[in-house]
Order: sequence, then C-alpha cells, then structure tokens
Amino acid sequence: MSGRRLDVLAIGNALVDVLSQESDEFVHEHGLERGAMTLVDAERAQALYDAMGPATEVSGGTAANTAAGLASFGASVGFVGRVRDDQLGAVFAHDIRAIGVEFATAPASEGAPTGRCLIVVTPDAERTMSTFLGAASQLGPEDIDSEVVAAADITYLEGYLFDQPKAKEAFRHAARLAHDAGNRVALTLSDSFCVERHRADFLDLVEGQVDVLFANEAEVRSLYETDDFDGALAHVRGHCEIAALTRSEQGSVVVAGEDVHIVDAHPVAKVVDTTGAGDQYAAGFLHGLTHGHDLATCGRLGALAAAEVISHLGARPETSLAELARAELELA
Amino acid sequence: MSGRRLDVLAIGNALVDVLSQESDEFVHEHGLERGAMTLVDAERAQALYDAMGPATEVSGGTAANTAAGLASFGASVGFVGRVRDDQLGAVFAHDIRAIGVEFATAPASEGAPTGRCLIVVTPDAERTMSTFLGAASQLGPEDIDSEVVAAADITYLEGYLFDQPKAKEAFRHAARLAHDAGNRVALTLSDSFCVERHRADFLDLVEGQVDVLFANEAEVRSLYETDDFDGALAHVRGHCEIAALTRSEQGSVVVAGEDVHIVDAHPVAKVVDTTGAGDQYAAGFLHGLTHGHDLATCGRLGALAAAEVISHLGARPETSLAELARAELELA
Repeated sequence: MSGRRLDVLAIGNALVDVLSQESDEFVHEHGLERGAMTLVDAERAQALYDAMGPATEVSGGTAANTAAGLASFGASVGFVGRVRDDQLGAVFAHDIRAIGVEFATAPASEGAPTGRCLIVVTPDAERTMSTFLGAASQLGPEDIDSEVVAAADITYLEGYLFDQPKAKEAFRHAARLAHDAGNRVALTLSDSFCVERHRADFLDLVEGQVDVLFANEAEVRSLYETDDFDGALAHVRGHCEIAALTRSEQGSVVVAGEDVHIVDAHPVAKVVDTTGAGDQYAAGFLHGLTHGHDLATCGRLGALAAAEVISHLGARPETSLAELARAELELA
Repeated sequence: MSGRRLDVLAIGNALVDVLSQESDEFVHEHGLERGAMTLVDAERAQALYDAMGPATEVSGGTAANTAAGLASFGASVGFVGRVRDDQLGAVFAHDIRAIGVEFATAPASEGAPTGRCLIVVTPDAERTMSTFLGAASQLGPEDIDSEVVAAADITYLEGYLFDQPKAKEAFRHAARLAHDAGNRVALTLSDSFCVERHRADFLDLVEGQVDVLFANEAEVRSLYETDDFDGALAHVRGHCEIAALTRSEQGSVVVAGEDVHIVDAHPVAKVVDTTGAGDQYAAGFLHGLTHGHDLATCGRLGALAAAEVISHLGARPETSLAELARAELELA
C-alpha cells in the first residue's frame, strides 16, 4: 500500500457474488438454510451452480462491501483479502479499486480459485447464501502488513473470518497489531448463524479486544442467548467501547457506556433489496467515527448509507455517499 | 447436440457483458463512439476496463440473447458460439444452458480468453459498447455441425459475425447448409454501424440468402442508404421473404411480399433499459414463426418479449415468456 494514513483497514473474505432468482421449492429441494450463509466445498458449489438459473456476477464480501461504502464516502480505506490470479479475481480487484479502495493483497498463483458466494433470491426478496471460500480461505497472518495496520485508525474485521483457522489467526494477529499501535478494532458479527458457530470466541473478543461492535438484533440476541433486545443491550454496554446495533426499519441503537442514542432509519421510497444494509450502515458509522462526528451523527450516516443500498439491487452503493452525506449534514 | 429437432439454431458471438455506469465525459475522454458497438483489441479492452468504475458481469451476445428468449418462450433452440475454457466461459455456458438452450460448441483450450463486451451506460440510459471478441472470433466453419443445422427449422445469424473473416465463413457455410436442407435462414443486422461496415455483403445476403430479416429503422435505412423509412420498406419488400422492421415505441412493420402488417408496441409501465429489445423482438417473432402463428401474431409476440426486457436491467428475459405469451394469446 502507499504508506499514507488510512481511516479504516477492512479485512475479510474476497468474494464474487453469483445471484439468481429461484423459487421457494429450489431452496427446499437443495436443502439450503433459508436466509443463512452456509459454507460449501467446491463440489457442492458446482452442483448448486449447475442447478441455479441464469445468474449475474458482482463483487461482494461483507467487509469488502463496507470498504467500498467507505470509499464512496470519501474515506481513505484499504482492504485485505485473498483472491486467485484468475478472471473472477481480476473482477474482484477491479471493482474494489475502481471505487477507490487500496487493495494490495497479492493474488494467489496456485490453489483454489477465487471464492464465490452463490446467492439464491426467493420471491420474498430474501437471500440464501452458499459460499465457496476458495482462495479467500488462504488468508493468513502473513497477509497482514503491520505497517498498514499501524497506519489505520480503525481495523475492521468480519466475523466470517472465524470460519477458517488461518483467517481466524489473521484476524487475531491484525487485532493485536492494531492495539499495539494504539489504534481501534471494529468487528461485525456477520450473521446470527456465524455467531452460533463461534459464540464463545466472539464473547471473548467483544469483552477483550473489540472497541467498536456492529451487530443486528438477531446477532446480538444470539451472542447473549437472549430473546430480549433490551437484555442484550444491557450486556453489550459493559463489554465494548461502542456498540452500534441495527434493527432494520426500527433504526439503530448506539451505546457507549452511559451514552445511548436511538437513531431512526433513513426514509426509503421503495425497498428493493435489503442485502448490504448492515455492510453500508457500518461504512457510514465508521466514516463518521474517523471524521470527528459524534455518535448520533455516526448512526445517522450509517442509516443514510443503508437507505441508499436497499433502494437498489446489489450490496455496494451506486450513488456517491459523499454527496448524500454533504446534503444530510447541511440539513442538520 | 441431442439430435432432436430444433425450432431455431442461433449462431453468434459468445460474450459476457461487463456493465458500468459512467458520465458523458467518460465516453468523450476515452474516444468512444456513443451508442455504437466498437471492436477493440485485448490491450484497449484492458485499458478501458481499468478506467471503468465498479462493474456487473452478465452473459450477453445478441444472437445468444435471442436464443435465451426463445428458450423462455418454450421453443427448442440451440446456440453455436465460441468461449474459452476459463471462468467467464463457464459463466456464459452456465447461463445459456440454465435457461434451456442447447449449447454444445466445445470451449477453446488455448488462445484468447472468453470474449467480453464492455458496456458503458450513460445517465440517459444509452449504452456504448466496446467488444473484445477473444475466443468468439475463433468461430469458424468447423464449428457448424451440418446435422444440427439440418435439424433446425430456422438458422438465425447475427450480422456482427461479419466482423471476423472466419466467423463470416462460418455464417455463409451455415446459411448454405440450412438451405440445402430445405430450412430457412434469418439474419439480424445487429447495428447501423455494422451495416455501414458490411453494406455490400449484407445487400447481397438479403437479396440472395436471407429468408427472414430483422432490422431496426436505423439499420434498414443504412442498408439502403436512405433517410426515408418508407423508401427502405419498398426496397426490402422485394428482397426477402419476410422482413420484420422495428421502430421502438412506434412498434414494428412486418412485410412479406404483398402482405404488410403494422404492429403496435406492447405497453410498458416504465422503460428501465432498452438493451436487448431487438434481440427479444426477434425471439418472439421466431417463436411465432416456428409455432404456426400468422405474421401479425409473430410481430405481437416480438413486441411482447421486447416489452418484458426493457422493463428491467439486462438483455435477457426475467419472466417466463411462455406464460406471458399464453396470457397474451388468450386475450386475443
């Protein structure tokens, strides 16, 4: 990377999304877990792809989507994740650089191909994801450049990294480096099934190493094994410096010790596709946090970015978030 | 292929579309010909791709889009076109087979990668295309299976094939085989710039070898070098058995000797993206023609398919055209 100061360094799975529209029967027939992200091997991914209808390819990955959103806000942001030196890897690298993210992880020259997330969209607009991690699973501590982490105000990590031992190691290594350099660590819990898979680890992390936590209601309830959002809120308040908890159309709650903000959702004319709402909320929030805004404004910027992304198909912004933010902040 | 009877065999460039939204300045700065399809070499394609913003990948190719539309109508249809054995080639093959088209052309195991069409969408929804043909340009007479051509009621060819000597040879070879077997040959003129590049050839073809001609107003005016649609119409009437001439929101005109039909455009609630309108008109028309419908009904089925595709992003149908056709024909 260029050696310049970064607002955020995002670390996650480098994936290309492969989307098709399917019936509810398709989800049932292929034994998919509705609404969840399930890891699949190459063979299963191929069988599922063969069964899927005509598809569209678009760059994805949760932390990568957040990095794209931050770049759209005008933040300086880097991304670390593994692709292979193949066509889908070139697509991923093109798209993330084209939006202004520094992406310097060298593509693997051997091993599994670039990872992909097979996304089946059912008529209710819900998405069911089957991820073949491929080259993304090769991310390891050796891909984390200590100088780059030291140069980033916030190192942002996705929970999905815990699904692979090497990536988990990379995660812990990056968090340590960030704290050693006096910087902050942010985590998104990714999805409630991921929380179930790694609950003990995540609880440990949230208590000890995470400064900024992003979670939606299902994720934070799963983390604390409670059906009660308010109860989960009470737990999380004591555990990390800042928690931003999203609740779809009910907006978000931002807590930082005694400080609590209830932030309304940003109005949307028509919700087209909710994918990426959490990723973009994190982008807006982190942009605010690294640009001197108070926590309520961080939440509002998160809501603004989430509203943009759910108003169209796809998980990355199509409108300049910097311009939307300018208009929003002038109004305030 | 399976050896079964085909309604239509489509032959064309096998391409993956790479779409990004850009400003008018982008088109100007990069010396692109607005609204046209320009052929580019690998180096120019890479330079342009590097300059483009984040993109979406989706299978394309004009005759391939028509084949997809025919399959959606429930017609039995095959496609011949060249990809390489790479990831984009796998994407193309998946998408066209997934919609029900027989696609048996073996992928090239060496040479240029799968072809792609870089599509820049400007704020007025116009598309400017730069095509790197790659493996598609390797299509040659040896890829045309005489038994498959003999088994197809109509062999449908795209004008863009004339941009490459080998593909042009394949085109002529296929047309000859089709006629030898007592079948019909259909041609789409592709675009008015393509007509300009190959006017003499196309005039020859239309007079001597084309039974069914598809052209939009600009293309047929360019073919006969006239500013007058009615004048072009008079020319074309004498030259091929059937001509279906599309005029955007003004509908289409179908001529077959003395027989002339004026077909209205099918109403569309909101035009989102006009790409693929001509490809899908051809699909509807050819479906009608191979299923015993009169020419006016063929035109109506074309208008129906065109209306479906312009009501969403992308050049292939997202709704079952068979179901739309059923409803439309019951109404009549």
